[in-house]
Amino acid sequence: SRSINLAVIPGDGIGQEVVSQGLKVLRAVLPQDVKLETREYDLGARRWHRTGEILPDAELESLKGHDAILLGAIGDPSVPPGVLERGLLLKLRFAFDHYVNLRPSKLFPQTATPLAGRPDIDFVVVREGTEGPYTGNGGSLRTGTPAEVATEVSVNTAYGVERVVRDAYERAKARPRKKLTLVHKNNVLVHAGHMWKKIFDKVGEEYPEVTTDYLHVDAATIFFVTQPERFDVIVTDNLFGDILTDLAAAVTGGIGLAASGNINPTGAFPSMFEPVHGSAPDIAGQGKADPTATVLSVALLLRHLGYETEAARVEEAVAADLTERAGAAARTTDEIGDALAVRVAN
Amino acid sequence: SRSINLAVIPGDGIGQEVVSQGLKVLRAVLPQDVKLETREYDLGARRWHRTGEILPDAELESLKGHDAILLGAIGDPSVPPGVLERGLLLKLRFAFDHYVNLRPSKLFPQTATPLAGRPDIDFVVVREGTEGPYTGNGGSLRTGTPAEVATEVSVNTAYGVERVVRDAYERAKARPRKKLTLVHKNNVLVHAGHMWKKIFDKVGEEYPEVTTDYLHVDAATIFFVTQPERFDVIVTDNLFGDILTDLAAAVTGGIGLAASGNINPTGAFPSMFEPVHGSAPDIAGQGKADPTATVLSVALLLRHLGYETEAARVEEAVAADLTERAGAAARTTDEIGDALAVRVAN
Ligand SMILES: CC(C)[C@H](C(=O)O)[C@@H](O)C(=O)O
Ligand SMILES: CC(C)[C@H](C(=O)O)[C@@H](O)C(=O)O
Repeated sequence: SRSINLAVIPGDGIGQEVVSQGLKVLRAVLPQDVKLETREYDLGARRWHRTGEILPDAELESLKGHDAILLGAIGDPSVPPGVLERGLLLKLRFAFDHYVNLRPSKLFPQTATPLAGRPDIDFVVVREGTEGPYTGNGGSLRTGTPAEVATEVSVNTAYGVERVVRDAYERAKARPRKKLTLVHKNNVLVHAGHMWKKIFDKVGEEYPEVTTDYLHVDAATIFFVTQPERFDVIVTDNLFGDILTDLAAAVTGGIGLAASGNINPTGAFPSMFEPVHGSAPDIAGQGKADPTATVLSVALLLRHLGYETEAARVEEAVAADLTERAGAAARTTDEIGDALAVRVAN
Repeated sequence: SRSINLAVIPGDGIGQEVVSQGLKVLRAVLPQDVKLETREYDLGARRWHRTGEILPDAELESLKGHDAILLGAIGDPSVPPGVLERGLLLKLRFAFDHYVNLRPSKLFPQTATPLAGRPDIDFVVVREGTEGPYTGNGGSLRTGTPAEVATEVSVNTAYGVERVVRDAYERAKARPRKKLTLVHKNNVLVHAGHMWKKIFDKVGEEYPEVTTDYLHVDAATIFFVTQPERFDVIVTDNLFGDILTDLAAAVTGGIGLAASGNINPTGAFPSMFEPVHGSAPDIAGQGKADPTATVLSVALLLRHLGYETEAARVEEAVAADLTERAGAAARTTDEIGDALAVRVAN
């Protein structure tokens, strides 16, 4: 009989609330014969305040034993910026070699968008997850003095770029439009940019059926708001991917709907699924958080574990629910989770 | 009697066409007693193809003698990415210590925007121009092999950050809303980010009348499309400023309208004014380019040289012209330049 051994990291702020709904929908959609085991990990701001611990080795080790991780949100204004992001969230992405940070963007028919003309938006960003300016390289000299120098080093390897570019080609090949756009800034960041472009072109020779395209990151932001329908699959570096996917979320109904998967395609380590949004401490505990991004992240989790039918059912449930939302009274976090759970169970 | 000794670098693609219109409007708006001398510098792709030269020392030296520089656009697909950008455009910004890269964004009443609801947009981005990931630090090891490592180093100094932050506070203080937002990514780029934030807070103590705010760059892109009216003055690093100002241009009518000034506030070197757009080789030589961004850059140039009345007259002429454009037949580059020249002369 089949089973899923899931690690759950609710984290901070609205994390707990949205993760509960994600689990509710997951339980409702899974076939009877699949045994779901979950173990909750108490990590984040409260734990840090209480014990000073961020991610103890024993817990990192224990997380490795799971089939996947569902994460809510990490971060709180009471913790200095970077402590939990670098020490917990990025630590997990790096330790578990989540080199494909997968972020789909789709504008559902009834969903509000700030864009006039409601363009057709349906693309996926493959964001590199283990290199670039996120490596934590760099430092500060004469810190706090008028003579301070602070550096941040973007580290890029052919090894790291090739594997994520190849993954993006595979995804593009599997989609009807078969189009892949590389986004970088190779007219300024010439060392990293040239390497990305060279590898992108070289791997592309193996995918003659995929149409390719290159855009500088600044130009890409323009097209995100003027012509988002031009995009199918985008592959880009860790920092550009961070920026672009928030913008992508904004034009497709907001970060309340944006899902993500931190994927290790080799299966050597568990992949981690999380909404793109943060912990939103201002609305935490009030039942106001939209759990949809977490529920859509659960769909990515299901697909990753081979439950394609169930993943599609979750996505259809969300699409149907979003259609009903237009003009309807606002619902609580729990009510949205309940409605989605009912839909997927049918 | 007064005089302006202007260097003109038309550059590539549509550069020549838009610069001609900028000069036409400049001549029309200047008082009779101001003597305008211009010297054109042949720099860019054609020169590079012809002679292999990008920016010879003698020309760099000669450029120093001018009161200001008007630049059209640099870059052509026939030149490898980075050669002209790094060797000419960025070389000028760095050599002339253009540490304030000023980029105003305003949505004029009749101008098309991709944003539904037409928010009130009127902010200015103060982009640091001489540091960050643009320094050209970094390199590549085992280039072209599967073991390649490519790095890009963002270099940030307290000296460089403080002066641009101070400039931004001064600009915020002089505006009715007196609001300044720092944009960075201090939860990931902790070394540079912490330094920026610390200096931003410290300098802020001298400006109690300015309201301040901090946003991560990813979140900032969301607000650019959902709530751009919240911004007044933004100060940010070189790369984030590059990305954000293209997005800002996109939501305020496109890069056909986006002006910029690369300013050395000390006056030690000439400041340089240029449209944010590129050389657009696909429409070059066809009279299709919109010269408005260049004309608005001329307004920034006038203001920088102390011709405030004339700067305002150019901006009013553009506003009036934009109002008439809505629904009217498209005009050529030349016709738009003529119309603006007539308006400012009145
Ligand atoms: C919280 C932060 C470290 C994170 C990132 O920058 O990757 C977030 O913005 C995201 O996009 O998942
Ligand atoms: C052409 C390029 C080097 C330049 C930059 O990145 O600064 C341009 O995008 C700009 O914004 O002026």
